[in-house]
Amino acid sequence: MAPQTSTDLTAYCLQLCQQARAASKQLAQLTGQQKQNWLHQAATLLQQRSAELQAANEADLQAAPGYGLTPAAIDRLRLTPAVLQSMVEGLHQVAQLPDPVGEVMESNIRPNGLEVLKVRVPLGVVFFIYESRPNVTVDAAALCVKSGNAVILRGGKEALHSNLALGQLLADAAHQTGLPPHAVQLVNTTDRELVGHLLQRSDYITVTIPRGGESLIRRVAAEAKMPVIKHFTGNCHVYIDQSADLDLAVQVTVNSKCHRFGVCNAAESLIVHSAVAAQFLPRLAEALSTHQVEIRGDARVCQILPTATVATTEDYAAEFLGPILSAVVVDSLAEAISHIDQYSSGHTETIMTNDLNSARTFTQQVDSSAVMVNASTRFNDGFQFGLGAEIGISTDKFHARGPCGLKELTSYKYIVMGNGQIRE
Amino acid sequence: MAPQTSTDLTAYCLQLCQQARAASKQLAQLTGQQKQNWLHQAATLLQQRSAELQAANEADLQAAPGYGLTPAAIDRLRLTPAVLQSMVEGLHQVAQLPDPVGEVMESNIRPNGLEVLKVRVPLGVVFFIYESRPNVTVDAAALCVKSGNAVILRGGKEALHSNLALGQLLADAAHQTGLPPHAVQLVNTTDRELVGHLLQRSDYITVTIPRGGESLIRRVAAEAKMPVIKHFTGNCHVYIDQSADLDLAVQVTVNSKCHRFGVCNAAESLIVHSAVAAQFLPRLAEALSTHQVEIRGDARVCQILPTATVATTEDYAAEFLGPILSAVVVDSLAEAISHIDQYSSGHTETIMTNDLNSARTFTQQVDSSAVMVNASTRFNDGFQFGLGAEIGISTDKFHARGPCGLKELTSYKYIVMGNGQIRE
Repeated sequence: MAPQTSTDLTAYCLQLCQQARAASKQLAQLTGQQKQNWLHQAATLLQQRSAELQAANEADLQAAPGYGLTPAAIDRLRLTPAVLQSMVEGLHQVAQLPDPVGEVMESNIRPNGLEVLKVRVPLGVVFFIYESRPNVTVDAAALCVKSGNAVILRGGKEALHSNLALGQLLADAAHQTGLPPHAVQLVNTTDRELVGHLLQRSDYITVTIPRGGESLIRRVAAEAKMPVIKHFTGNCHVYIDQSADLDLAVQVTVNSKCHRFGVCNAAESLIVHSAVAAQFLPRLAEALSTHQVEIRGDARVCQILPTATVATTEDYAAEFLGPILSAVVVDSLAEAISHIDQYSSGHTETIMTNDLNSARTFTQQVDSSAVMVNASTRFNDGFQFGLGAEIGISTDKFHARGPCGLKELTSYKYIVMGNGQIRE
Repeated sequence: MAPQTSTDLTAYCLQLCQQARAASKQLAQLTGQQKQNWLHQAATLLQQRSAELQAANEADLQAAPGYGLTPAAIDRLRLTPAVLQSMVEGLHQVAQLPDPVGEVMESNIRPNGLEVLKVRVPLGVVFFIYESRPNVTVDAAALCVKSGNAVILRGGKEALHSNLALGQLLADAAHQTGLPPHAVQLVNTTDRELVGHLLQRSDYITVTIPRGGESLIRRVAAEAKMPVIKHFTGNCHVYIDQSADLDLAVQVTVNSKCHRFGVCNAAESLIVHSAVAAQFLPRLAEALSTHQVEIRGDARVCQILPTATVATTEDYAAEFLGPILSAVVVDSLAEAISHIDQYSSGHTETIMTNDLNSARTFTQQVDSSAVMVNASTRFNDGFQFGLGAEIGISTDKFHARGPCGLKELTSYKYIVMGNGQIRE
């Protein structure tokens, strides 16, 4: 039963927290095999219950226009057979990743014989807040539990029926494989007040991870009393150095911008060295025109490209998530880095260059979660980096930066083995 | 000039922040040699200026009784020749530690040829708030700058004159060795409002580290808009298992409790298995009596030890930082772990045992920054673990846990080297 009053809500939040903490203590002690069994069983249930899940999803799809969702957003909400199959595969993939818990990260035998081990342990309780797509429910639960954490999931109202059905499925899989019943708890209301309540509970919740629009993330960061792993906007830059191979530069810029428009690691801004601007920009504009990308540039860009429109300061700061690219011409690498420093959101930047010093200076001085040389910005992704599935891409510098996967959902403790050592 | 009005204060805080950020960008690019030169030069100036420093310190010592400082606290404030010499040695030691910046923490060549490097980088700007002892000024500045961070230092009013003299010394060493002038900034006022202002500036400050009493840390944790590395109390436990070597158990308990009373890794609470309580407790009480330690126990402890007083619930939760030890008798390892779970502050716990399963269960289930087997709690310390100097012992699980040294003052970024890779 969803809570009806504010007192109910407080009690409900406390119950969620207490159940999560109790589950987290058991989860921390599970073997990797037990967690794998749960993941595989959840995958089996997903296949068995596809009809039920699609029926629940249908209720969300029916309600979606009433929430003002665009056809594209409704499309992302839909649990198609392909989406369900990718969820099944995602669960098996997470099952196969190495268990992070118990890994000896560092060790050291002291002169007095003490053995000091730094050992990876779960964080405890994760509160995950997300919007729209119901497949995120399963992905997030899989990563949190595999890393030994209990998780409280709070999805968007648009996906409530789908999420409740998926939450029940994950709980059933837990029951069937001996996991604690409250390892994964799906909040049964989309009352906004509930989020505010839970964000106060630093006594139970170790970390909150919001994933969604900027306003959600700002609200969570402002209210939360516990640490937050933030995933702000991705205003990613491609810089074309004067020494760049212009064929590759066109390919990589087009891929960075157009491979998928609506993702955080898509390029939003182009910087071109003046020595190659007149050669490069028309070739790029031609390649981008097949993708209907609008270029918004400074005076020098507009002079070279008559089709370009004039960029505003807001354009340089924008995460368009669509077929628009801001562009600027600079006279030096230093100027390019300074532009990035001013406008970047610290997500991903790439340089196209054949000059070793330019590459070294760029990678050393640009302060973003991923800094690339001669590669598409689209590679800033857990799978692409070989790190496995991720719960988001952190634009923070504290605890987790870049792809946030199993390791980033852990802490550590020191285990010290002695035979009676005392301090002199 | 110290700011006089609230508007002055806001402007002063912004200036501190802007200068720190500018310095942090330069510090991130320095070579290890440059940072070493600064550390050695600061050590040289410390020796050259010992008379000046002691004169500034004398002003603090004169004012100390007016602040209500106890003779012991005044003693800790004093810059004796021995304290100055240990500061000099501390600077040379930090200079000799490996530079954490630029370390490749992980690397991975992807099937498409992309080289993915996870590289250690500085956090940015550290705001360090501390109380009393002026030598902490030098220790903290050394660790922050060595790890490539700019630092804003805010010491206590009791040490203001000493701290200002030390801050000037560190700035002079920076000037003489080519470091940015605002690498280390010492706040020139002890206005409490200033801390509140700076705790809002998550746009400039990457992390705040408070070190001092519990009320300071609670205030900072409640107000800060940026991440905080907290160092709460150390209510450390020693558990005597039924299989313990009782000779070693007496030695380790006495060392954990009495080696230094006023430190966070001193034992505050003892748990004894009922099978050995009657043998162990009288021997321990005798050994502790030479250190004038009072034992506060439960009914079974008091029955065995007529000299013990009755413990309250508050006693089990207390960090005494003095010659008092709470004690309880339990009938199983599980009961011991449950007692720790209820009362521990998550700092350090140790088990005395010869039983392999007890040792494994204890280290796996106890959730503290350091969990030890047959060793004194006093070893939870950066130097003792072989990690070098530390800025504190974190009781958090997020980002930094346990000794917080050079590595814990860093973040990382991914550097990706390609030759034109795009995502298919």
